[in-house]
Order: sequence, then structure tokens, then C-alpha cells
Amino acid sequence: MNKVNYHSLKMRVYYEDTDAQGVVYYANYLKFLERARTEYLRDIGYEQEKLMSEGILFIVNGLQMSFRKPAKLDDEISIKTKLIKLGKASFHFDQEVFSKEDYLLCKGLVRCACIHSKSFKPTALPVKLHEGMKSLL
Amino acid sequence: MNKVNYHSLKMRVYYEDTDAQGVVYYANYLKFLERARTEYLRDIGYEQEKLMSEGILFIVNGLQMSFRKPAKLDDEISIKTKLIKLGKASFHFDQEVFSKEDYLLCKGLVRCACIHSKSFKPTALPVKLHEGMKSLL
Amino acid sequence: MNKVNYHSLKMRVYYEDTDAQGVVYYANYLKFLERARTEYLRDIGYEQEKLMSEGILFIVNGLQMSFRKPAKLDDEISIKTKLIKLGKASFHFDQEVFSKEDYLLCKGLVRCACIHSKSFKPTALPVKLHEGMKSLL
Amino acid sequence: MNKVNYHSLKMRVYYEDTDAQGVVYYANYLKFLERARTEYLRDIGYEQEKLMSEGILFIVNGLQMSFRKPAKLDDEISIKTKLIKLGKASFHFDQEVFSKEDYLLCKGLVRCACIHSKSFKPTALPVKLHEGMKSLL
Repeated sequence: MNKVNYHSLKMRVYYEDTDAQGVVYYANYLKFLERARTEYLRDIGYEQEKLMSEGILFIVNGLQMSFRKPAKLDDEISIKTKLIKLGKASFHFDQEVFSKEDYLLCKGLVRCACIHSKSFKPTALPVKLHEGMKSLL
Repeated sequence: MNKVNYHSLKMRVYYEDTDAQGVVYYANYLKFLERARTEYLRDIGYEQEKLMSEGILFIVNGLQMSFRKPAKLDDEISIKTKLIKLGKASFHFDQEVFSKEDYLLCKGLVRCACIHSKSFKPTALPVKLHEGMKSLL
Repeated sequence: MNKVNYHSLKMRVYYEDTDAQGVVYYANYLKFLERARTEYLRDIGYEQEKLMSEGILFIVNGLQMSFRKPAKLDDEISIKTKLIKLGKASFHFDQEVFSKEDYLLCKGLVRCACIHSKSFKPTALPVKLHEGMKSLL
Repeated sequence: MNKVNYHSLKMRVYYEDTDAQGVVYYANYLKFLERARTEYLRDIGYEQEKLMSEGILFIVNGLQMSFRKPAKLDDEISIKTKLIKLGKASFHFDQEVFSKEDYLLCKGLVRCACIHSKSFKPTALPVKLHEGMKSLL
């Protein structure tokens, strides 16, 4: 990932995130990635709760993940996020999770879509949001 | 708990349920208890998804939990559930979690309420459901 | 809760925290409470990961929860935490969750114990930690 | 997926699995997939708890997921699992989640590795387990 122009979110690992292997449970990295995407878009004035009330939802329809090193209890980690592709009703993110010592812990390519909240059918991103997201490319 | 007339649900402990202490994370017992309450009510013909589509939700508004012994990865546990109180818009459950060897792992008293799905205000249980639940007392 | 002398932790509600009722799932408040207790103790120089490596674990052995109002997606909430009782191997917290508008969302009394990481038997709190915790009373 | 020779696990969707979109939260499918892999291997006499006590862990080091249709509260779903590749210290699964009406909800390719529980370094699968897994190919 080009480290210029990415969004960064710091977070802490709590018991809830770990499993009996003593490290973060693999599914929980997907929660971390979503928190980061949410804050990334909040930074350009977008909130999912508000969009939801306007009948629009964002979903993940595909992802590729690679897990390299484990994060542990009490670790401070940071999530780097970058919008890498933007279509009319879809958008892709590159995301990486780093340890405090800057080791790459895991990375993902996340493909999202914009859908109607009732029909769950694809729908174009609202114009203003689309423009805001363009600025992230 | 009077062990006559209780509902029993068996389940298995997976990695997702455990934490770095090597045992089931305390919040996850609340998931187990809800699974058991859900199956208990499904047995008398009630489904939350259907009630939700009729504008009715069940919520937990109070609980008391006591954690005695830890459950571990791969453990087979059973949840015993008994309706112990039934009001017009509220109902209480006694619930206990047992190990395969019949040790009490944790127990809880769970106070639930019936609310409107839009207003989130208390509303009477549908008559038929109330009658069905009476049979569980 | 006496609002003097409590610890406060702000957090955000994400999709992972909510359920199909559109609000925070009841078990997830227990995660929030644990994050707050963890930061409360980190503030006096204590880390669970480190204690764990010294053979000491903290567990919750009892709790009483009251759920008043629901938190929703994207809500900013704050957790107030106060140590209210301290024994040799046990300690109790009062915890309350507030909305941004300062509504009480839920409150809990959480009873914790200090145990050996291998035997899972109660053990006295390390002297220094006990002293540090005394300062929180 | 060749539907001959796959393992099938049925499960139910509970509130804990859903989010404010009214459907299963994307990260939770990874929990379902792990439950299925666990039962698949339990069927050939293998338990993770036991292997862990022998110093061996299984981890996921990569995955590709495609989410097609949402599962909802109370849905009965089934997970199909098939071992498709087996190395000395690694193994891959094809996994698919189906609705009761046999719609494909999501599918994944999951790459796992066998590691030492202390060093977290790759280690060969125990011979007997390797042979047992061969029979699944």
C-alpha cells in the first residue's frame, strides 16, 4: 500500500477480541477493518446510520485476507485504509493492520456495494457521497 | 432450579466463544442463554423473526449472573431454561449452564420485556403467545 | 453513582455491536464494560497481558445489569467506572453507560476475582496492585 | 464444489449473529465456517483442544470470501465443507453456506496452517492426523 494518503485508525486489543490461542480471533480482524472503513468515511462527512435512514446500505460482497502475524491482548494496533476503486454502486478498499512496532499483522482487499435497504438490490451511490469518495482515491 | 419441566439445549464451545484466558469469555454466556430462550419459545411455536415482522420485539431489561466454573474449547455444555414469571408485557427466566459432567458453570436470572419495534415502548404480549407461555410456568 | 472520582471512556457503536433490532445487542454491553475496566486499571499502570504472564488472571464471577435505553449504530457513548469495593482477592465495580446526550443507557454492578492462571483458584492481588487499586476507592 | 463427499453442518441464525442491517454480520460467517471445519475434523477423530494440549495449533493464514445473499434471523442454514488441498503443514478448505431453500449465501476458500503453540512457527501435521485428513480429499 502506498503509505501516502491512507487513513489510519489506532485501537487496542481487548479480551473480547482474543481466543484460546492467546491471540486475536481471525474473524475479529474483520470487525477492526469495518471500524476503520467507518471512520474513514465519517471523516468525509458520511455516517452509516444516516444513510440507513435514507434507505441506503453498504455491504461487503467480497474479501481477500492474508493473516501474517498475530496480535495479542493489550496490543495497540493501527489500521491503514485506502479507497482504491470507485464505481457507481461499488467501491474497493485496501486495508492493512500493523503492530505498534510497525509489523504487518494482516492485510485485506475488501469489495463493497451500495444497496437499497428494503430490496437489497444494488443502487447508485448518492452523488455527493460519490464525489466525496472520489477525493479519497 | 426445579429440574422437572425445564427446557434443555446442548451446544458446543468453539474458538469464537473463548478468550486469551483459555475459557469462554463472560459476555458469550449471554449469547448461549439467548440461544436457549429462543429455542424454548420456538418449541411452543414462536419465532422472533415472525414477531418482529408483526412489530413486536423482545428485549432483556435486566439480568443477574453468577459465573462458577469455566467452560473450555470443545466442551459440550447444556443450557437449562425455565420461565418463572409471566406478566402482561414482561417475563422472567431462570437459566443454568452445565458441563457434560453436570457441573454448574453459570446461572442467570433474565428479565425480559415485550416492546413495539418502532416506539420501543412496552406492549402486551400477543394473547396466543401469552397463553402458550403460561403453559411453560 | 457519585460522579466525582469515576473513570470515563468514550467509544463509538459499530455494526458489529448491533443486532437485527437495530440497537446494541445486550451481550455487547459487557464487552464495553470490560474495555472500560481495562482502561481504568491501565491508568494506574496495570496491564492484563503482563499480569497474565505473571500467572494472574482477573475474572468476573458475578454481575447485575439493568438495561434502560438502547444505543444505536454510530452513537457515541461513554462508560463511567468506579471501584466500589476491594478485598484481598476480589473487587467490585459500579459501571454506567451514557449516551452523548447524557441519558443513562445501562448500568451494572460487576464482581471480579483474582485467580491463578493455571489452577483457576482465588489468589491475593499483588501488593502493589492492591495499593494502586485502593487509591481508586 | 463437487457436492459428493462434502461435510454438512446445519445451524440456526440467532440475534447475536445479526446486525442493524437485519441480516448476518459479515464477520460472523467466518465463525460459522470455523464451526463447520471443527466438526468436519471432529468426525475423523480430531479435537482442537486435545491438539492444543499437545502443542499444536491450527490457524487461518488466508481466505477469499464471496457474499451473495444475506441470511436472516431464525434462518436455518447449512455449511458445506471440503478439504481440497493437503500439504505437510498446511491445508485448504472450500466452504459454502446455503439457505434452507438451497440458495448459495456465501462461499469461501480458507487456507490453514499447522503451527507450534509456543513459537507460532509452522510444524508438520501429526502423521495420524495427516493420514486421516488424506481420506477427506
